[in-house]
Amino acid sequence: MDERLEQARAAIRSRNYYSAFPESPSPRVYGAAAAAEGKAAFERHFGSTFGVSTPGASGEICSERSPYGLQPEISYPRLKAGGLDELVKAAAAGMPTWRDAGPKRRAEVCLAVLDALHARVFELAHAVQHTSGQAFVTAFQAGGTHALDRALEVIAYALEAMDFHADRARWVKPGRSGDLVVEKTFTVVPRGLGLVVGCNTFPTWNSYPGLFASLVTGNPVIVKPHPSAVLPLAITVQAAQAVLSAEGFDPHLVTLAAEGDGDRLAKDLATRPEVRVVDFTGSTAFGEWLEAHAPQARVYTEKAGVNPVVLDGTDDYTGMCDNLAFTLALYSGQMCTTSQNLFVPGDGVETNHGRKSSADVAASIGGAIERLLGEDSRAVEILGAIVSPAVLERLERADRLGEVLVASRPITHPDYPDAVIRTPTLIGVGAGSDAYRSESFGPVSFVVTTASTAQSLELLEHTVAEAGAITASVYSTSEHVLAVTRDLALRTGVALSENLTDGVYVNQSAAYSDFHGTGANPAANASYTDLDFVAGRFHVVQSRRHPSVQAMPG
Amino acid sequence: MDERLEQARAAIRSRNYYSAFPESPSPRVYGAAAAAEGKAAFERHFGSTFGVSTPGASGEICSERSPYGLQPEISYPRLKAGGLDELVKAAAAGMPTWRDAGPKRRAEVCLAVLDALHARVFELAHAVQHTSGQAFVTAFQAGGTHALDRALEVIAYALEAMDFHADRARWVKPGRSGDLVVEKTFTVVPRGLGLVVGCNTFPTWNSYPGLFASLVTGNPVIVKPHPSAVLPLAITVQAAQAVLSAEGFDPHLVTLAAEGDGDRLAKDLATRPEVRVVDFTGSTAFGEWLEAHAPQARVYTEKAGVNPVVLDGTDDYTGMCDNLAFTLALYSGQMCTTSQNLFVPGDGVETNHGRKSSADVAASIGGAIERLLGEDSRAVEILGAIVSPAVLERLERADRLGEVLVASRPITHPDYPDAVIRTPTLIGVGAGSDAYRSESFGPVSFVVTTASTAQSLELLEHTVAEAGAITASVYSTSEHVLAVTRDLALRTGVALSENLTDGVYVNQSAAYSDFHGTGANPAANASYTDLDFVAGRFHVVQSRRHPSVQAMPG
Repeated sequence: MDERLEQARAAIRSRNYYSAFPESPSPRVYGAAAAAEGKAAFERHFGSTFGVSTPGASGEICSERSPYGLQPEISYPRLKAGGLDELVKAAAAGMPTWRDAGPKRRAEVCLAVLDALHARVFELAHAVQHTSGQAFVTAFQAGGTHALDRALEVIAYALEAMDFHADRARWVKPGRSGDLVVEKTFTVVPRGLGLVVGCNTFPTWNSYPGLFASLVTGNPVIVKPHPSAVLPLAITVQAAQAVLSAEGFDPHLVTLAAEGDGDRLAKDLATRPEVRVVDFTGSTAFGEWLEAHAPQARVYTEKAGVNPVVLDGTDDYTGMCDNLAFTLALYSGQMCTTSQNLFVPGDGVETNHGRKSSADVAASIGGAIERLLGEDSRAVEILGAIVSPAVLERLERADRLGEVLVASRPITHPDYPDAVIRTPTLIGVGAGSDAYRSESFGPVSFVVTTASTAQSLELLEHTVAEAGAITASVYSTSEHVLAVTRDLALRTGVALSENLTDGVYVNQSAAYSDFHGTGANPAANASYTDLDFVAGRFHVVQSRRHPSVQAMPG
Repeated sequence: MDERLEQARAAIRSRNYYSAFPESPSPRVYGAAAAAEGKAAFERHFGSTFGVSTPGASGEICSERSPYGLQPEISYPRLKAGGLDELVKAAAAGMPTWRDAGPKRRAEVCLAVLDALHARVFELAHAVQHTSGQAFVTAFQAGGTHALDRALEVIAYALEAMDFHADRARWVKPGRSGDLVVEKTFTVVPRGLGLVVGCNTFPTWNSYPGLFASLVTGNPVIVKPHPSAVLPLAITVQAAQAVLSAEGFDPHLVTLAAEGDGDRLAKDLATRPEVRVVDFTGSTAFGEWLEAHAPQARVYTEKAGVNPVVLDGTDDYTGMCDNLAFTLALYSGQMCTTSQNLFVPGDGVETNHGRKSSADVAASIGGAIERLLGEDSRAVEILGAIVSPAVLERLERADRLGEVLVASRPITHPDYPDAVIRTPTLIGVGAGSDAYRSESFGPVSFVVTTASTAQSLELLEHTVAEAGAITASVYSTSEHVLAVTRDLALRTGVALSENLTDGVYVNQSAAYSDFHGTGANPAANASYTDLDFVAGRFHVVQSRRHPSVQAMPG
């Protein structure tokens, strides 16, 4: 087996550090020509009709807008009226052969797809940058190498689950009148068609786990990208179709279903009886709709959340503020893992720089943000661009929600003058405010003044139970407070980071080691990745016979 | 760890023979006094109020009728109006302590519950016999030792799944400016309250997988028995509560919610937000309702099916007919694994006794049934009693569905003159009939005359895809037909038995080796037992920190 797969299988058990796809875009790693070639490959798509095969399509759709102001004008196949039947039929056609190939062979082909994507990682990074608004290095990592690592991780999980049972057995039951012997075979069969519904901000990172989990367990996958972030997934489908063909499988095992406004493709696809697995990243409203309206499918959702930070005390005030500043600034807080609510007791936080009030903490974080962002040319490489008008509008109205403790400011991108770039804002509110109790996606976070750390913890529990969270964070020098928070995190089912002051950030999760989402609170009904994320994507079907009647097949 | 648990963990991977609970009720195994003591213990319940603790209950309910005509008149606690709130609260109260005990300790306690039940296995067998109508030995095995083996099996699966990840890790990421080190802990947390909805025919065998899967993964379990089969699960809950108390846990981690007519308990419980896992055995209609109406819960259902047998040819005609006769006769066909539809080509089946028409095959099976049942005293130990008036009525109307090829006849039980006991009937129909396309639960099976084995296989595929099946069976001497059938079984997702002529029967599945249900066709959305049956019952919640900030806890 592929050495990387072996190491991935070990890492998901040990949770130790592992990576198969180098995260540095440096020419020392990828060669001197890679960056320019990738950019050129990306730009060659401009104005073209993208080369993927979508059965049931007729005509094209061009729906993307670049947060950096580029006009890529790339067209993708659009399903014709009634084209869904054709698409679903074509997607299913290759399933028996793909099933019969078996887990190891499927994993081999999936790894070849990852390698094909890795060979195009600079092109992929530009595609992610200019659809999501992520800065280039963020896009290279989160949208490229980290996404590939999460894909390899899920393939490792799926193989562990599929290999759990022997594929044949000789069952011998001792009896008084001699042994009873039965020979049995056990075959992994796919659940059915998979549907992956992509999002705008992390089109690959959030789609690859579901895509490769379904594919490696034998299910064809229809990829429905966000209309504003088609290219990264179109490249992915193109690479998959090419590898599948080259390896002798039906290329339509992976297809792209791009949609225009009002096409309702996700709803129509998710409720088809043939679609038995749905992976979704997006709004809570549509995620919950899918959970309730597609009972024929196993539905995995990642939705919205209100990620809390409880500030109780620290012996490294500067480290704490720097760490939080980076989290708030990275990709302008447009991550489902960005902290939204910073709970600070009214009598302040005990620190190595003395006691700090809510306003002090906000000011210090604001200062740290400014230090971090420094020159505009450096700032844009951390902030990226605002992904959509909706996020910008939310930011612009944030001052109505409370007291502006740290103001957002616009930054002009030296290379992309049309890009909308903003620093994060911090809004001060009281514990009784409703403003912080639902997700305010983007560069808007709240400093919530509470009566005490006890109330902060109570609010952590209530807001996470009500509105969900992918991450939670606590700063305290009290072992008691840390223990209580840890217990609360278990109770509410949220991943906890404690006293992060160094080069690890609450909004980052490492493949093979950190679980992204738990499935235990409203922010997600699944985790990247655990056994439950893969085990429901296939079934085991057995056959059995007396050994004397005929020989074992194969 | 318990030696049995180690062996069970090995067996579920190898699928080799294993059993931890001896299936023979012989005094050589269980001692000379066990049978009489168990019967006495069973009879001591008569006319009593059963000793279980059900928070929220007030008053009693007495709902059981014995298919053997006994009048046990046992009363169980009945929830008062509004008592659900109290029950749900009490069930949840012990969850944090149970969670903190960890997987190994919970498994230990669950095994102690199995041992407590095993010590009462004769009492349990009588309870199953006199609620389900199973004959004593069937009840002892299916309702006692085999149910305990399925429970141990599921505990083994759950431990494999919970132990899959390390519970702590030191994550070291190499970097140019030194290693980045994070210490992490990973904790298994329960999903929430479990609900187990029992059935009338296999109150323990079909409930134990869900009950112990939920319990060992940290979830409290509310057991809602079928109103006609309360005692076996009441004994189970009583044993669990006693063991939990003795081991220092909240006894209400397992509770009994008996219901009266019209109490709607299953619906009301399944849709409570606190209930996050539902295990159900019963009708397709209610199973599908649960799948669609409890999106907050992971719902595992076992529903109805139309188990097919394709008869193409055999070189052991007598063995084939004897084997089928046993399957049809055992517990009067009141098993979700009993074959319902025997597909025979119009030009007959090639056998070592010459070519046999549908009528010939039916007659031979009828003859085999009569030989098998022989004396009434022997017959009743195979047939058991008819579980309910609905099954009897279905049998009595079966002659309207087609030609009666083998007639059912009543048998009088030498010890229980009021027991309703019937031999199975075989009804002949054409392939175009609708009669065989839905489940006809009980001692009614069909001989379906088809145009050819090809049509038989087509009908296997269509009926299983439409109405589901737990088992499928084929008799053929053609390797080609066997291969095609095996492929069909994979495609429709049904467990296949090939050419069973010896002491293995299609309606029996062995714990640790045979999967019961696949989840891949309408008869069940889950399997006893695979990883998917356990992996969704818990979450993994992590916490992480810099190693220098504080020591690892614990």
